[in-house]
Amino acid sequence: MSSRIELGYTADYHVHLRQGEMMDLVTPTVRDGGVSIAYIMPNLTPPITDIDRVVEYKKELQKLAPKTTFLMTFYLSKLLTPELVAKAADEGAIAGIKCYPAGVTTNSQAGVDPNDFTAFYPIFKVMEQKNLVLNLHGEKPSTHDNGEDIHVLNAEEKFLPALARLHKDFPNLKIVLEHCTSKAAIDAIHEINKDLKQGEQPKVVASLTAHHLFLTIDDWAGNPVNFCKPVAKLPHDRRALLDAAVSGKPYFFFGSDSAPHDLSKKSVHIGVCAGVYTQKFAIAYVAEIFDKIGKLDMLKDFVSTFGNAFYEMDESKLVCNDRCVLVKKDVDIPEVMTFGDSKLKIAPFRPVDKLHWSTEWI
Amino acid sequence: MSSRIELGYTADYHVHLRQGEMMDLVTPTVRDGGVSIAYIMPNLTPPITDIDRVVEYKKELQKLAPKTTFLMTFYLSKLLTPELVAKAADEGAIAGIKCYPAGVTTNSQAGVDPNDFTAFYPIFKVMEQKNLVLNLHGEKPSTHDNGEDIHVLNAEEKFLPALARLHKDFPNLKIVLEHCTSKAAIDAIHEINKDLKQGEQPKVVASLTAHHLFLTIDDWAGNPVNFCKPVAKLPHDRRALLDAAVSGKPYFFFGSDSAPHDLSKKSVHIGVCAGVYTQKFAIAYVAEIFDKIGKLDMLKDFVSTFGNAFYEMDESKLVCNDRCVLVKKDVDIPEVMTFGDSKLKIAPFRPVDKLHWSTEWI
Repeated sequence: MSSRIELGYTADYHVHLRQGEMMDLVTPTVRDGGVSIAYIMPNLTPPITDIDRVVEYKKELQKLAPKTTFLMTFYLSKLLTPELVAKAADEGAIAGIKCYPAGVTTNSQAGVDPNDFTAFYPIFKVMEQKNLVLNLHGEKPSTHDNGEDIHVLNAEEKFLPALARLHKDFPNLKIVLEHCTSKAAIDAIHEINKDLKQGEQPKVVASLTAHHLFLTIDDWAGNPVNFCKPVAKLPHDRRALLDAAVSGKPYFFFGSDSAPHDLSKKSVHIGVCAGVYTQKFAIAYVAEIFDKIGKLDMLKDFVSTFGNAFYEMDESKLVCNDRCVLVKKDVDIPEVMTFGDSKLKIAPFRPVDKLHWSTEWI
Repeated sequence: MSSRIELGYTADYHVHLRQGEMMDLVTPTVRDGGVSIAYIMPNLTPPITDIDRVVEYKKELQKLAPKTTFLMTFYLSKLLTPELVAKAADEGAIAGIKCYPAGVTTNSQAGVDPNDFTAFYPIFKVMEQKNLVLNLHGEKPSTHDNGEDIHVLNAEEKFLPALARLHKDFPNLKIVLEHCTSKAAIDAIHEINKDLKQGEQPKVVASLTAHHLFLTIDDWAGNPVNFCKPVAKLPHDRRALLDAAVSGKPYFFFGSDSAPHDLSKKSVHIGVCAGVYTQKFAIAYVAEIFDKIGKLDMLKDFVSTFGNAFYEMDESKLVCNDRCVLVKKDVDIPEVMTFGDSKLKIAPFRPVDKLHWSTEWI
C-alpha cells in the first residue's frame, strides 16, 4: 500500500458528543479523528424528542466544529408522535431515530421494551415513508428471572429475532443494527442480505465500532476503560466482526459509538459508566487493525463509501468539502487526555501505545 | 428453621490474609465472619516457599487472631523440592500446597504452566505419601493466538482435563479444585466422584466461594468490586454452584477466597485487582443465599462438616474450641469498611444491603 490513502468523505455513523463542557471539549475531536460526517446520538439528559431541541443542539455542535457535517437523530420514546416525526423529516431536522431498549446503556432509562415494538409501528410507518433510518441498540435487557437467562453476553443475540420481525413488518424501513458485537449478529445481517444484488442498496445494515474490532471479554475484565455496552465478546466474535468490516459488503460500515465519560466515572468500584472514547483517533484505530491483517485497501469502503451510500450522503450535503487522507505517521495515544483549564479528563481507547497511521485533510 | 443454628467448627478453606497493614486489619475479621478454621493462601510477595517463612507467617496471624486456627500452605513453584515438602509435612508446617497457573490472578507470576504439570510429579508423589492437599487454581491462562481461544469465560472448563489427568496419575493425592465457578467444573467433580460410596472420603473435591453463589457476569460488568478470578460466569453456572453447595455431597464445601484489596486498587480504569472481600461476613453471606432457597439445613455440612472431614480436622487440632452459631439478626453491610487511623479501605462484597443472619460464638 501507498503511505497516503485518500478516504474521501469519511463518516462516523454513531457518535456521542454529550452536552455542556464535555460537548465543548469532544466535538472538535471529530475532525481530529479524521471524520467528516458525524451521525449524532440523541441520548442527552433529557433525551432529544423534539424539533426545537435537535435544531438547537445541531447549532451548538456546528459552532464548535464548523467543518464537520452533523446528521441528527431523535430518541425513540412515547413522547414522539407520527406527526412530529413526519414534520421533523420534512424539515430535514433529523436523519433517523435511535431506539434504546430501556436500561441497557448510558441514559437509556427512557427507552422502549424490545419485547414489544408494536406500540411504535405508527412511527415506523412514517419513518419508512419519509426515508428516515431506524438505529437500533440491539440488546435485550438482562433477566435471570423468567427462564430466559439474558445476560450481557447473549443480550445481542437474543435481540436478533426482534430485528428480523421488524424487517419483515417494514421491508422498506432502513434499519441499522448499531455497534454489532457478535458473530450471531453478523450472521443475521448476512442472512437478511443474502439475496442482495450487486449495486442494490441494502435495507438492513450493521455498524461496527473501532474498539470492538480489537477487544474481547478479557480486555474489559478488570479494565473499565474498555467497558461498554454491548460488551466486547469472545475471540470468535471479534474475528467475525473484523471479517465483516473488511468483507467489502455494503451492509457493514463504520460507526464508532465513541462515548466519552469523565475519568472519574470510569475509575469507580461500582457503577462504571459504559462507553469507550475513540473519537480523537477514530479513523486511525480502524486503519491500524485493517493494516495489521493486510486489508487497508478495504478501509475507504468501510469508513466512507458504504455508510454514505446507505445514508444517501453526497458532496452537496456537506458543510465542508475537505477530504480525509490517511497518512503513514506514528502517533502516541495518551493514557489520559486533558483539555486546558478544564477539570474533565478522558482516558481514550488505547489498544496500542502508538498508532501507525494518522489523518490529514485536503 | 430455628432462629439459632449451631454450625460447629466452621471452616473457610481458602483465605487470603495478605501481609503488612492489610494483614493486620483483615486477620481479625476471620472470626468476625463466623469462621473458626482458616486455610491460608501463600501468594504473598514473594510467595511462601520455605518452612521458616510459613512458620513465621502463621505466628504473625496467630498473634492477630488468637482464637482462629490457621492451616498453612506453600506456593507451588520451582523453588520447592520433594525433600523440602516432605520436611514441611513431617513438621506439620503446612497442610497443603497451592498451585497457581502463571499469570491468572493476584501474585501468580511465579506460578506453573498448567499444560505441563509433569515437572512437579516428584512433589505430587511426596504430597500423596504425606497426605498433603493440592489446592488448584483451576484456570488456563488466556490465549487467542494458538487456535485454542482461551478466555476468562472458558478458562476453568479448559483446565478440567488437566485435573482429570492429575487424579488419574495420583489417585490417592487429595486435590481441591478451588473456587469452582462453572457448571462444567461441578459436573466434572460429580463425575470423578460418581462411584464414591456412602461414608467414603472423596479424593477430589471442589471448594465454592460465597460470592460465586450470588454473582453472574452482569454483576462484575461495570462493577470492579465484584471482579475476581475466576470471573463469575453465566446464570446456569451460578445455579449449578448453588445446587452443588446445598447438595449434601461431601465433595463440595466452603472456601471463601476472600481477597481484600485496598479500594484504590479497585477504583481504577485499568488494571483492577481481582478479588472479592467476604471475610467479615463470610458465613452470613452463605446463610443468606441458602436461606433464600430454603436450604439452611444444609449449611452446617457445607461450612463445617464436609471441609473438616476432607482436611481431617477435629477438635484436638484447634486453638480454640468455640463453636459458631448462626443467629437470626439483621446486619447492614457497609459500602466501604474503614479501620481506625489506617488509610486502607475495603469495599466488602455487598450483594444485598442487609444480611438477615449473623454469627456468634459459644
